[in-house]
Amino acid sequence: MSRPRIGLWLIGTRGGVASTALVGLAALKQQRMPPVGLVTELPLFAELDLPDWSDFVVGGHEIRDVSIFDEAMCLATQSRAIEPELVLRARSELDAIDRRVCWGTLHGVGSTITQLADNEVPRQENPREAVERIQQDLQAFAAAEDLEHVIVVNVASTEPAIDSSRLPAEWDKFEKLLDAEECPLPASSLYAIAVLELGCSYINFTPALGSTPAAFDQLVRRRATRHMGCDGKTGETLMKSVLGPMFAHRHLDVMSWVGHNIFGNLDGRVLDDPANKQAKVASKDHLLREILGYAPQTHVSIEHIASLGDWKTAWDHIHFRGFLGTPMTLQFIWQGCDSLLAAPLVLDMARLADAARRRGEIGTLTFLASFFKSPRGVDEQGFIRQFHLLESWVQRASAGPK
Amino acid sequence: MSRPRIGLWLIGTRGGVASTALVGLAALKQQRMPPVGLVTELPLFAELDLPDWSDFVVGGHEIRDVSIFDEAMCLATQSRAIEPELVLRARSELDAIDRRVCWGTLHGVGSTITQLADNEVPRQENPREAVERIQQDLQAFAAAEDLEHVIVVNVASTEPAIDSSRLPAEWDKFEKLLDAEECPLPASSLYAIAVLELGCSYINFTPALGSTPAAFDQLVRRRATRHMGCDGKTGETLMKSVLGPMFAHRHLDVMSWVGHNIFGNLDGRVLDDPANKQAKVASKDHLLREILGYAPQTHVSIEHIASLGDWKTAWDHIHFRGFLGTPMTLQFIWQGCDSLLAAPLVLDMARLADAARRRGEIGTLTFLASFFKSPRGVDEQGFIRQFHLLESWVQRASAGPK
Amino acid sequence: MSRPRIGLWLIGTRGGVASTALVGLAALKQQRMPPVGLVTELPLFAELDLPDWSDFVVGGHEIRDVSIFDEAMCLATQSRAIEPELVLRARSELDAIDRRVCWGTLHGVGSTITQLADNEVPRQENPREAVERIQQDLQAFAAAEDLEHVIVVNVASTEPAIDSSRLPAEWDKFEKLLDAEECPLPASSLYAIAVLELGCSYINFTPALGSTPAAFDQLVRRRATRHMGCDGKTGETLMKSVLGPMFAHRHLDVMSWVGHNIFGNLDGRVLDDPANKQAKVASKDHLLREILGYAPQTHVSIEHIASLGDWKTAWDHIHFRGFLGTPMTLQFIWQGCDSLLAAPLVLDMARLADAARRRGEIGTLTFLASFFKSPRGVDEQGFIRQFHLLESWVQRASAGPK
Amino acid sequence: MSRPRIGLWLIGTRGGVASTALVGLAALKQQRMPPVGLVTELPLFAELDLPDWSDFVVGGHEIRDVSIFDEAMCLATQSRAIEPELVLRARSELDAIDRRVCWGTLHGVGSTITQLADNEVPRQENPREAVERIQQDLQAFAAAEDLEHVIVVNVASTEPAIDSSRLPAEWDKFEKLLDAEECPLPASSLYAIAVLELGCSYINFTPALGSTPAAFDQLVRRRATRHMGCDGKTGETLMKSVLGPMFAHRHLDVMSWVGHNIFGNLDGRVLDDPANKQAKVASKDHLLREILGYAPQTHVSIEHIASLGDWKTAWDHIHFRGFLGTPMTLQFIWQGCDSLLAAPLVLDMARLADAARRRGEIGTLTFLASFFKSPRGVDEQGFIRQFHLLESWVQRASAGPK
Repeated sequence: MSRPRIGLWLIGTRGGVASTALVGLAALKQQRMPPVGLVTELPLFAELDLPDWSDFVVGGHEIRDVSIFDEAMCLATQSRAIEPELVLRARSELDAIDRRVCWGTLHGVGSTITQLADNEVPRQENPREAVERIQQDLQAFAAAEDLEHVIVVNVASTEPAIDSSRLPAEWDKFEKLLDAEECPLPASSLYAIAVLELGCSYINFTPALGSTPAAFDQLVRRRATRHMGCDGKTGETLMKSVLGPMFAHRHLDVMSWVGHNIFGNLDGRVLDDPANKQAKVASKDHLLREILGYAPQTHVSIEHIASLGDWKTAWDHIHFRGFLGTPMTLQFIWQGCDSLLAAPLVLDMARLADAARRRGEIGTLTFLASFFKSPRGVDEQGFIRQFHLLESWVQRASAGPK
Repeated sequence: MSRPRIGLWLIGTRGGVASTALVGLAALKQQRMPPVGLVTELPLFAELDLPDWSDFVVGGHEIRDVSIFDEAMCLATQSRAIEPELVLRARSELDAIDRRVCWGTLHGVGSTITQLADNEVPRQENPREAVERIQQDLQAFAAAEDLEHVIVVNVASTEPAIDSSRLPAEWDKFEKLLDAEECPLPASSLYAIAVLELGCSYINFTPALGSTPAAFDQLVRRRATRHMGCDGKTGETLMKSVLGPMFAHRHLDVMSWVGHNIFGNLDGRVLDDPANKQAKVASKDHLLREILGYAPQTHVSIEHIASLGDWKTAWDHIHFRGFLGTPMTLQFIWQGCDSLLAAPLVLDMARLADAARRRGEIGTLTFLASFFKSPRGVDEQGFIRQFHLLESWVQRASAGPK
Repeated sequence: MSRPRIGLWLIGTRGGVASTALVGLAALKQQRMPPVGLVTELPLFAELDLPDWSDFVVGGHEIRDVSIFDEAMCLATQSRAIEPELVLRARSELDAIDRRVCWGTLHGVGSTITQLADNEVPRQENPREAVERIQQDLQAFAAAEDLEHVIVVNVASTEPAIDSSRLPAEWDKFEKLLDAEECPLPASSLYAIAVLELGCSYINFTPALGSTPAAFDQLVRRRATRHMGCDGKTGETLMKSVLGPMFAHRHLDVMSWVGHNIFGNLDGRVLDDPANKQAKVASKDHLLREILGYAPQTHVSIEHIASLGDWKTAWDHIHFRGFLGTPMTLQFIWQGCDSLLAAPLVLDMARLADAARRRGEIGTLTFLASFFKSPRGVDEQGFIRQFHLLESWVQRASAGPK
Repeated sequence: MSRPRIGLWLIGTRGGVASTALVGLAALKQQRMPPVGLVTELPLFAELDLPDWSDFVVGGHEIRDVSIFDEAMCLATQSRAIEPELVLRARSELDAIDRRVCWGTLHGVGSTITQLADNEVPRQENPREAVERIQQDLQAFAAAEDLEHVIVVNVASTEPAIDSSRLPAEWDKFEKLLDAEECPLPASSLYAIAVLELGCSYINFTPALGSTPAAFDQLVRRRATRHMGCDGKTGETLMKSVLGPMFAHRHLDVMSWVGHNIFGNLDGRVLDDPANKQAKVASKDHLLREILGYAPQTHVSIEHIASLGDWKTAWDHIHFRGFLGTPMTLQFIWQGCDSLLAAPLVLDMARLADAARRRGEIGTLTFLASFFKSPRGVDEQGFIRQFHLLESWVQRASAGPK
């Protein structure tokens, strides 16, 4: 019996996270690399029937006219983030994916992202037309590659935040926004609509709106599909969700928590636009007060420092009071490659979303909470407790179908 | 109905941890301080019938001829660790405790600690005589103060490590070591024997041997009492037990973990003796490989830097590989007051051990694992999972007697 | 022969820097403190005929209705920056100074500072009236205290920056701005005019305009007096002026230099106003490119984090390339008390300005360059080379009168 | 007129520093690299008649049977310290140098270094025979390559320290140690004798004894040659010599200075031997008290952490008191490639030593003080003041011959 073919469709196929994931996927297929950094390669998952790395066929939407190979080489030579050898040996695989990439949409992505877009990216279509075009791309991909299922992961740059509090909670009303004179929905939500209406799985790895609004629950159930988001948790915020519970459980009073992030990749350039930055900062900042049960003074800054390339450096200064009220300090300095930390989680979630599909799971994949800064449908923000959700799911899933 | 009177007997009554705990206890009794830093003051414990702070009567063993008040003032003025006002207002309470302090024993504490001891500390008695004298002190304390129960916490300086692998596992053989020509047992174990034989509770807050040997299980059961240890987890090692699981769960490969600790209090002076330091370093070092499942290169150093006083500063450098094998770095700098971080845990555990007694619990109090670097009877070294043990116990205990 | 009496007039008498300086001056007069932190107490100055600490009589201008004692106690108890004992023993001295304080002026200080001002601070007077009132205050002070000379040091909060490029370079035209319908001059310059016209010495310890404009050279010479500024160099920028030359001399290519400053005192609160912050950031940022000879990407942020009080913490991340182009990193974390680092320099410069006066020096006191972020009349920004200017002056001054 | 040919003879030709220097020299000759990191490429030296990079012919002594190319590739791929491309393009140049390498001597290098040595390295010759063999190698090199002069730089691993206080101060007595039954002189001094007796220039870039003893002054003058040392100043100690004067000039009282160094290259492995480490620690530690004029508590540790490769990471914690006695803290973290920081200084000093020779300079080259942790013949330990010595020399040298 031949293996099923699974589609992995990346929105932002030629960005840093996608390029890194695809270099890694090629190396995994060729078994040229130990599976370090991949959660689903932990012994915990040994009994689970997950897709093989070779089951995946990759395509995607993108707005820039570059090549995945060049982007990956840039991470290798300019950022010194990847061994050049790994990129060179993935070249034919990357080039094949490049040929499957279609133009994305620029609705609501803001002027900074629009300036990066190629001239050929459609600018005249209305939101509904964009959704339909996206669906045609996905259907063509699935047909051409004979795919059993397609999982779409949004790894595009951060869009400007919108006020989502007034969006309708019912799908039938929400869906009409596509025809509104001033449609408030950003690209990420157009993708989400297109993807979920087709019954594909949708994972929002960015702080963009995507399928966050409540109305999507109805759509997801109607189409018997699944989704999760948002904003992958990979560095400074991962640390917050790990350290926050320590302070809470020891009854140490966090007075202030300052986080200063510097990095120099394209994502950083987009975040230099205050409109785009606002969404990111909000996503990095909310979880502390949820973990602690009170609101310490917080400050999150993100600055684009070109020389750092993909090396995200975060300095966090945590000022807390202990017994007898004495102030003390914890500082940490995180020096990680942004794309390298994010990329494996994209691959992990593609595997896990497909496993959930095979088990017949429908709705929000809350067991993926530990991967996200703002996990949809989950109040728990502590990392270890979020990981328990994953462990429990593995236990259930290892026991057999739902 | 009058409240029960509970004895809290501190071995090392005039050291930094004890002095700080006692300043705090005085402030808590007088309700002059918010209960920050105390785990048992978290909402989690609200339904539990814990002793009041005013239920506690304090005494202890000590080998130095100083006063608790002077030691606490030194923490206030030299280390700037405590507000002087808090110490001044605790003075009469501290002086009363000083009057209940008895001379401790110097068996096996090593030359560095012995040099700190007052001339009047008994040096001629043999181990069995020491045990008997300790028991007389405890009995006199209980009688004089009309105590329902006495909880003994060892907060003395770190003793030199001994090879405990050849100690007999059966109590009847173990107990005979007291009469051996060269009794290998250090002071902490003599105290543990004395305390547990009387049916008191014993908590070992130091890396010393204490009641760690397996044979103590039999003694504890025979006397229907309880114990726990060892080595309170308050700073750098707490961080290890919080961060270690993050690396494990994200499948990040820790290549090396270097921890450099500097501080200037008396504990630091004792640890400058290599014999004493060895026990501490071992206690700080083992848990990483247990959490990670493999052994990264580790290095733990502890240096006595006089100017720092009680301010323990730890720099940890964690070198790890992620996806595609790229090395990354996390560094943290912990600037905490050693005594202030340890002291509330001593008070917490006195309360919890008494609550366990009232529920009829006998044996090793494994639910206290999150307080220790080397929790007796518990393999789990991750802090959050250890804290679950405490949460589960609170749930059971809140539901009623055992 | 009795000692001369020297006036020290502080603009911002009740702020953190002034309060700290005055606690220290009291302790120095009473010889209750080693002279640590005072440059003029180095052996280098041993042969120089400097004023005694007891020669100084202090007064000043201020806009807030608080007491110096309360401000100093706040530094002691809230910020834990000063030993309370030192403040308590200075009380009568501080109270006497408080009685000599006059209301300052609010011209051009911006809304954030104005909101801090007492209701009684004059708000109706025009700039010329303000100057005249300031002069009356100074003259009354000198007369009442029988002073040989008055040195005025501006230690008030940072004013909003103004565009000074169009200010006239000739004094006669400049002086007419006082009568202009929309006088562009901020308070610091009104003080400078008032002070220098009277022949007093003027030191600008803040990044405010003060006597920076070129036209002041004419005024200073006409009145045969002296001045210097601006912006005391005490922490992060001191480090820049020390480390910058190392990178330059080793031909290490600084690609980016990020400095993130957090602190919680009143100065920090004022700097939270972007108008005021701009002046400070410019003053902290310019010197790197002057030292290096090229402009690396720089970022300076200053955030008000209330819990830190007077403890200014700066994290600087310096990304540089060495031989073969390999990027490397130097990071530093500075944890200093802002007021404690600035205060002694105020006292030092009062002494040195008076010594310069006695030697008959007129004009810009360039030998004080090492004390300033933006030293007037000096291009050299490297700290050690600036210190040579001071050493050479001491050598000349020790040899006798000019 | 053809250019003069200058010999550069490296003791430890295949170590990290030498390999890096030689990759760089090849790139400089081919003009494939900007001269970042090279002091002699600063504008300061523009007028000086320095040797061209292409004037240098390289050979050396070595005890390991590896190739320079492999060592350099290891720095590229394992340590990610050098771009692989640079090494690949230097290959033929490196291989040519390899062919000129001769076996070194193992006298007094200690067991750790001896274990690294190839079996063919002579072990039977006595010290005088070793000196003679070294001289034959140098003479053969000079003859074969038609060299005008040879400069020898010692970049071998750190030898164990010896007690040099009893060595004779007169050359005629000193020289007789070569025939002593138990000659106390380590390899570095045998090389120094051999080199200087031939009239070559000798630079000791390591903390080894080399030509440090006073008696060498006589030898150097007799042979009309020149020398300098010892121990290149490249990272943590460079920082000490830069920051120390800041504390001194601001009268800030350094109470303690802790430096913790971790790295994983071969040098680090040798320094794991306490005998070898002692020499290094002493060299890193002495200068603070010379700069400050008093002795703060200091601690220097050096640990071999394999995963770091050539990336030397130093954490320094400086605890100081300022005005009013308040303790404050400066910490820095230095993340540099050890070999990359040292290598250009080797090339710089080869050029400068040759320029000094052409000017007829004889004796200790004190103007090179800024390059060394323990500069021979110079008391000044502050980096900037040491650099003035270099600047003054350049000024003199640019003006014409001595």
